[in-house]
Amino acid sequence: MAVYTDVSAEDLTEFLKDYDLGPLLSFKGIAEGVENSNFLIETGGGRYILTLYEKRVKRDEIPFFLGLMGHLADRGINCPLPVKGHDGQALRTLAGRPAAIVTFLEGVSYRRPSVAHCQALGAALAGLHEAGKGYHGTRVNALAVGDWRPLAETAGDRADEIAPGLSIAIRNELDDLELHWPRTLESGIIHADLFPNNVLFVGDQLSGLIDFYFAAHDAFAYDLAICLNAWCFEADFSFNLTKGRAMIAAYRAKRPLNRAEIEALPVLCRGAAMRFLLTRLVDWLNVPPGALVRPLDPMEYFKKLRFHQGVQAASAYGLME
Amino acid sequence: MAVYTDVSAEDLTEFLKDYDLGPLLSFKGIAEGVENSNFLIETGGGRYILTLYEKRVKRDEIPFFLGLMGHLADRGINCPLPVKGHDGQALRTLAGRPAAIVTFLEGVSYRRPSVAHCQALGAALAGLHEAGKGYHGTRVNALAVGDWRPLAETAGDRADEIAPGLSIAIRNELDDLELHWPRTLESGIIHADLFPNNVLFVGDQLSGLIDFYFAAHDAFAYDLAICLNAWCFEADFSFNLTKGRAMIAAYRAKRPLNRAEIEALPVLCRGAAMRFLLTRLVDWLNVPPGALVRPLDPMEYFKKLRFHQGVQAASAYGLME
Repeated sequence: MAVYTDVSAEDLTEFLKDYDLGPLLSFKGIAEGVENSNFLIETGGGRYILTLYEKRVKRDEIPFFLGLMGHLADRGINCPLPVKGHDGQALRTLAGRPAAIVTFLEGVSYRRPSVAHCQALGAALAGLHEAGKGYHGTRVNALAVGDWRPLAETAGDRADEIAPGLSIAIRNELDDLELHWPRTLESGIIHADLFPNNVLFVGDQLSGLIDFYFAAHDAFAYDLAICLNAWCFEADFSFNLTKGRAMIAAYRAKRPLNRAEIEALPVLCRGAAMRFLLTRLVDWLNVPPGALVRPLDPMEYFKKLRFHQGVQAASAYGLME
Repeated sequence: MAVYTDVSAEDLTEFLKDYDLGPLLSFKGIAEGVENSNFLIETGGGRYILTLYEKRVKRDEIPFFLGLMGHLADRGINCPLPVKGHDGQALRTLAGRPAAIVTFLEGVSYRRPSVAHCQALGAALAGLHEAGKGYHGTRVNALAVGDWRPLAETAGDRADEIAPGLSIAIRNELDDLELHWPRTLESGIIHADLFPNNVLFVGDQLSGLIDFYFAAHDAFAYDLAICLNAWCFEADFSFNLTKGRAMIAAYRAKRPLNRAEIEALPVLCRGAAMRFLLTRLVDWLNVPPGALVRPLDPMEYFKKLRFHQGVQAASAYGLME
């Protein structure tokens, strides 16, 4: 949540000459996004988000993300639509960095989503999965089941600095996940990071899905598991069955879950918890001294993992047969 | 340039119930302002800036600043207009901090202002000085001539860490400034920090003056000296006479400069350079280890001071008799 690259009005005015957006009326660096620099800009043509891609996003992967947003927006998904320059290209360069302009979406992110928000999210997620079918781009999920053990090994026994016994608990869980991970579920483009901060609402109406920079090919039901983890736990880490039920039911109304997906849901939820536990753990152990931004607590996801380890069937998440 | 305080959509929605601004449609933390947290918000009523005041601004001084903006806006100055809540108050509390909402202004800040921009600024500055007359609020300038020596003493000989001989050069200049400082010039409310980043333009049209948190009572011509320093030097620290001439002429067309002000301009420019040299020096020497934000270079203002020390008369700034 920061602006990493400084852009002058002069440079932005020059940059906009490659577009048909009219004169620059306003621009503000905004505190948003994973590790990119984002600016809310207003031109004669309306409001847009300008993104400068910093180190975390690889340049050769950006066309996949921009193409995906265009594909989804064309199919009625409320997601940012990349704006092309005069040469037909959306990906350009500004201040020495890959840069793109996308349409601005109204709405705010709720930190404590309600049942109605979870329901809207479930429907939007299924809509996203359906709309992604037919997208020509391909991207392997770089944080899939096979990537977790190497990630755990970079933390190693230092995990125990956070909680005694954490490193062995992770290793044991990874043994089990690798053995039982479902590998033949229906797959396609998943968002893979659809946390509340990446979903915009106006009141209870879902107005936007943003930040597609983890999108990749993987099992659709795994994306649902990520959302159950991110949306349906309360602050005390209890699972809110009403929210889970609302999300799953809304999802199934738009994209039915088959038997294999339903049976896999508990292990998918464990895997989804493991994936965020591990990236948070590595971030936590690698905070540069003096950093102003405190990383997210990995233990939050360890507690969610513990909950899922006790789950026998998808009914525990509110799935109704 | 940062957002220091985190505000949730839930808290902001609650906060907005005290206003007549309609539903919350969007809000983004923006990288703007001295040391406050700023958010660009959009409601059914339009766009606004929400400011949460952090440590640098004293709570008991905020009514002076908000009242001033209201006074100026009522007199046609393009500055943010504080928005009052149902109880008639503009200053409220959010996330434990003093908070206020003001109207949003279009425009961008240019880093390298042109002659046309300097001309527009000169006219706007004179307009600001005229419009401020009659404002009932009072605030002593906390960074006036008498405050510079104590500031220099907090740096002490550590100034020499930045440039050998800097501490003695500052002391000598302070001796001279205190002796020759003009104390009977026409005074009133000055902005006192009208740098290019605090002035908005749409093209060459000045669309807004912002960030009034250094405004205070002091000599009008001192405010002009601050602007000559901030706007009319080139990147190589040469003074651009064309810009100075444009700014001064536009100022005088709206508010004539009298003989005493014209004669004082060189010493006022030296004083203005000293004031920013000193605050930058103190900031520079007090950077916390690991800080992400590099403070502004004090030597920039030492070079400007050196230029002014060689100036004999206001004609060197482009003032035409």
